[in-house]
Amino acid sequence: MNRIAVMTSGGDCPGMNAAIRSVVRTGIANGLEVFGIEQGYKGLMENRIKLLESKDVANMIQRGGTFLKSARSLEFKTDEGQQMAVGNLEANGIEGLVVIGGDGSLTGARILHEKFGIKVVGLPGSIDNDIYGTSISIGVDTALNTICRAVDMINETASSHDRTFLIEVMGRNCGYLALMSAIASGAEAVIIPEVKYNIESIINKIKVRYVEGKSRSVVIVAEGAGSAYDIGKAFQLIGGFDTRITVLGHLQRGGAPSVFDRTLATRLGSAAVKGLIEGRTGVMAGLGNREISFTPLSEVLTKKRDLDETMLKIAEELSL
Amino acid sequence: MNRIAVMTSGGDCPGMNAAIRSVVRTGIANGLEVFGIEQGYKGLMENRIKLLESKDVANMIQRGGTFLKSARSLEFKTDEGQQMAVGNLEANGIEGLVVIGGDGSLTGARILHEKFGIKVVGLPGSIDNDIYGTSISIGVDTALNTICRAVDMINETASSHDRTFLIEVMGRNCGYLALMSAIASGAEAVIIPEVKYNIESIINKIKVRYVEGKSRSVVIVAEGAGSAYDIGKAFQLIGGFDTRITVLGHLQRGGAPSVFDRTLATRLGSAAVKGLIEGRTGVMAGLGNREISFTPLSEVLTKKRDLDETMLKIAEELSL
Amino acid sequence: MNRIAVMTSGGDCPGMNAAIRSVVRTGIANGLEVFGIEQGYKGLMENRIKLLESKDVANMIQRGGTFLKSARSLEFKTDEGQQMAVGNLEANGIEGLVVIGGDGSLTGARILHEKFGIKVVGLPGSIDNDIYGTSISIGVDTALNTICRAVDMINETASSHDRTFLIEVMGRNCGYLALMSAIASGAEAVIIPEVKYNIESIINKIKVRYVEGKSRSVVIVAEGAGSAYDIGKAFQLIGGFDTRITVLGHLQRGGAPSVFDRTLATRLGSAAVKGLIEGRTGVMAGLGNREISFTPLSEVLTKKRDLDETMLKIAEELSL
Amino acid sequence: MNRIAVMTSGGDCPGMNAAIRSVVRTGIANGLEVFGIEQGYKGLMENRIKLLESKDVANMIQRGGTFLKSARSLEFKTDEGQQMAVGNLEANGIEGLVVIGGDGSLTGARILHEKFGIKVVGLPGSIDNDIYGTSISIGVDTALNTICRAVDMINETASSHDRTFLIEVMGRNCGYLALMSAIASGAEAVIIPEVKYNIESIINKIKVRYVEGKSRSVVIVAEGAGSAYDIGKAFQLIGGFDTRITVLGHLQRGGAPSVFDRTLATRLGSAAVKGLIEGRTGVMAGLGNREISFTPLSEVLTKKRDLDETMLKIAEELSL
Repeated sequence: MNRIAVMTSGGDCPGMNAAIRSVVRTGIANGLEVFGIEQGYKGLMENRIKLLESKDVANMIQRGGTFLKSARSLEFKTDEGQQMAVGNLEANGIEGLVVIGGDGSLTGARILHEKFGIKVVGLPGSIDNDIYGTSISIGVDTALNTICRAVDMINETASSHDRTFLIEVMGRNCGYLALMSAIASGAEAVIIPEVKYNIESIINKIKVRYVEGKSRSVVIVAEGAGSAYDIGKAFQLIGGFDTRITVLGHLQRGGAPSVFDRTLATRLGSAAVKGLIEGRTGVMAGLGNREISFTPLSEVLTKKRDLDETMLKIAEELSL
Repeated sequence: MNRIAVMTSGGDCPGMNAAIRSVVRTGIANGLEVFGIEQGYKGLMENRIKLLESKDVANMIQRGGTFLKSARSLEFKTDEGQQMAVGNLEANGIEGLVVIGGDGSLTGARILHEKFGIKVVGLPGSIDNDIYGTSISIGVDTALNTICRAVDMINETASSHDRTFLIEVMGRNCGYLALMSAIASGAEAVIIPEVKYNIESIINKIKVRYVEGKSRSVVIVAEGAGSAYDIGKAFQLIGGFDTRITVLGHLQRGGAPSVFDRTLATRLGSAAVKGLIEGRTGVMAGLGNREISFTPLSEVLTKKRDLDETMLKIAEELSL
Repeated sequence: MNRIAVMTSGGDCPGMNAAIRSVVRTGIANGLEVFGIEQGYKGLMENRIKLLESKDVANMIQRGGTFLKSARSLEFKTDEGQQMAVGNLEANGIEGLVVIGGDGSLTGARILHEKFGIKVVGLPGSIDNDIYGTSISIGVDTALNTICRAVDMINETASSHDRTFLIEVMGRNCGYLALMSAIASGAEAVIIPEVKYNIESIINKIKVRYVEGKSRSVVIVAEGAGSAYDIGKAFQLIGGFDTRITVLGHLQRGGAPSVFDRTLATRLGSAAVKGLIEGRTGVMAGLGNREISFTPLSEVLTKKRDLDETMLKIAEELSL
Repeated sequence: MNRIAVMTSGGDCPGMNAAIRSVVRTGIANGLEVFGIEQGYKGLMENRIKLLESKDVANMIQRGGTFLKSARSLEFKTDEGQQMAVGNLEANGIEGLVVIGGDGSLTGARILHEKFGIKVVGLPGSIDNDIYGTSISIGVDTALNTICRAVDMINETASSHDRTFLIEVMGRNCGYLALMSAIASGAEAVIIPEVKYNIESIINKIKVRYVEGKSRSVVIVAEGAGSAYDIGKAFQLIGGFDTRITVLGHLQRGGAPSVFDRTLATRLGSAAVKGLIEGRTGVMAGLGNREISFTPLSEVLTKKRDLDETMLKIAEELSL
């Protein structure tokens, strides 16, 4: 193997640059040429591919987003688009590919592997932490810290007033961010898609707290469980009190990656390159029990992560 | 003068604790006893008043919110409520009062002064920067830094994608926060209540940028100029493209005060106490041309700050 | 078991408050009374012990340091001191004890267990990450993030000039903080106590970089490997060029705990209480392969953590 | 006037990029071509000058350091060097120059103006705030916030122990950073070059605090008043107790500029360009009483800023 390429695809997350940097420098250190593909599958189809040198990824480990840019591509879903992509890989003499992204991106990687025999290793990049085959994805730790800093700030102003604050965080199918940030910020309640919630019991809890003199409450809402605005209206209607809404939005994807994400991305990027060299393909590199592990993409894309029941119980016991 | 009191009222802002600390320690250093009134006018009517010592305000300068808590009180608007308040001041032997807050809080201070002859000095605390008689209010600098950190973070993820981001910031009648954060974050456009905006020309500007290859745009919206959600719908309807919404909400009131706000609050708190000792009353201490100045509350509450035309022009020239 | 107590001892670290909070609330949720011992073994000998309620640990999860305070105690090393400590535990009817701290603190816990039969569970709190029996200690992740934020800031100013920066970080016997922060910040070299370093080869590497046009270099130094000032003098003497020194000092112990540390502390605190209830004693709760594990204190205090060779190799390959 | 140039020189500071951006975009908005000179006077002598477009300064307002790089140049002090510099300005048809930096940089600007008749406007960039003719220089506000965040963090860990912390901050001839950060962080004492200090009275103050139960003390030391290490030794010798030292070093020059610095730099950059167009030269644009003012460089470089006596008094009264 002489030439490999790396790309980021789908929603961006903090740590993608650190992963790209690791792929590039590990590749070079092992005698490979490493190419960067811009804007994911879109750029691959349009042949926007360039050789990356060590200095191109200097000062990148600490930057959020992805300097290779990312995009969602409908065209790649067609056979024609896929043929173009594969043609460009071959034209550039690229023998191995590292794809960093979420489920959609890894689905593309699986197609390249299964349908066209391209050697490909995927890396899990998604702040939602909804990817099977890794205990945690690149970007999750940074997003959690961003959310908790925001909740800490809101707590500070909240404790000067008698109010309930609803904070909507990302997570369309997955309440991980909401649950973990609720635990880490000491929120009074959390509303996630995986667990049926009873709005009346949450309202009651807040009212009991109010009677006990704890007049400030924070509720974290995963976007997949309903909009904070709608839940706010329900609080008004059922509970008879106003709430204050914050929708953190894309703030959660931003910021310099945390040390955990920089290190995870660096380790996974290094493992992906070494995996390709050793002949691995059609797999995703992830964090197993403290060690890097490889899981077939077919498994990654069909199995589902479970919510950690212990953490649910801790959330309940500690938000007395 | 032997005994003075201090209270915070209305919406809280970063720097209120620094102002309280300065009032307490300046008072003590000048031979006074200083009392703290909890929860603003509500606490004053309910006689929740306690002597504060130097150590009670230790480790307070860096804390957001207000440890004396704040509240809005409808009851104080009645003559009965005011009588109760004045009675409690007299019962505690309090001869001078420092009130920290926005227009509503200063209106209360004016009543105590004009109707009851209480010696009172107000301090401007409001992240909106909508108070006449000071070039800047306590809390504004911190809020601006919080907003810009958020916009910086969103910019980072935004530059990986082709998208327009709408960020709603506080400011019901006043576009100061929106305008200054737009300048300081390099946003492409700003929508504020003071200036009639043309949504089509903003959309056109964004489209021109897109054609030029600058596919990412950020628009700051002051809440007083319309909800970011409604403006987002207009972009969809008129411009034909989706936007991403972030509503920062009470996050903007939180956080440790910036050095500017700690220093401003400290200087104003010190000036208020010295003003009371020198016999000033019915005034607000504010920041004039770098020096502390006192403005009659009657003026503070009837005149209106103008938006700085120079800054508007700079915003236009620099967001090319 | 009806009554347990919790204390922090030795050097403080971010996350200690989160651990105390978890012990208190988990205890209460499981029907126990939980007491807080102030200032570690010193306070235990002086009987400074008080009942903690749920609200005493409200708003604690996000605070750095330890509200129970910490201290080093020479007196506890004597038999007399230990008798006093044990006497106070008995007098208060305390049947189980959770000790949070580093090697010294856990040695005290071991004595209470082995010599006096006190039921005790230790928790690893130390930013150095030098404790055997856990993959990571409470406080490490926060300290790493603090260091890397500092290095990022120095990098920014450094890249405007032609200079070499030496940054001294904590770690008396253990280069973990230095090594991991070097990887995560993209430093050019790292000097740690575990690995013999050749100052001339570091100087050469920096000189080669300089010739290649990369005129800025950052070297991370673990305090246990020598003072940054002395190393700076060696650079001057051998290399003939000046360096800029930053000694981060106790900054590294400060700051709000990261989400990782809050969660780790919460999980370990919960596990410690449940461990005591189930009859465990003389052990430390730590993070094994993603799951909580218990290791005998006798083992914790006699075995030594190894430096991760993989991370050493990554540090070399990526700082090209 | 058709062509102007901008450069940064001497020690860098946060906000330099914002100033460059403002010069470039204000120039373009007013029909000028704007050139960037790399590495200050060194680059000017070496003719490293390039046309800057609007997009070259996109995403620059939030970045620390200076993308034009900076340097100190001994060669420019010679007549020969100056001739080269002037020759390059003429060869490129540059009719006006904006120089951003401290005293050394402005001295160069004065030479170009007085000796060679070059039209030049200076901007004050220096975290020390030691430049006459402006109430505050670009970079000061960011540096103060960086220092106070550090002191806040140290305070947090300090309050868990009985210790005195010495924190050394920048300021060779000027105690402004030390004094203002001492006020804003609530430090117990401050040691600056402008005020004779008595180490025994500081030690006594700390001992009195200790007796009163306030066992934690923070002392801020300006580097110009002596090294924190030496002062620490004096504490040991005279007071008989250990201290903990932190030397913040170049950390203080780093970081994203605060909103205040971004706005100040933007306003000054805009004023400099408009000043050049209106025919101003041999002056520095600074912040007067809230408005931009121009001061002759001859005055800037010969007069000395006074330390604000009011702030000294506040520092004393409030650190009770």
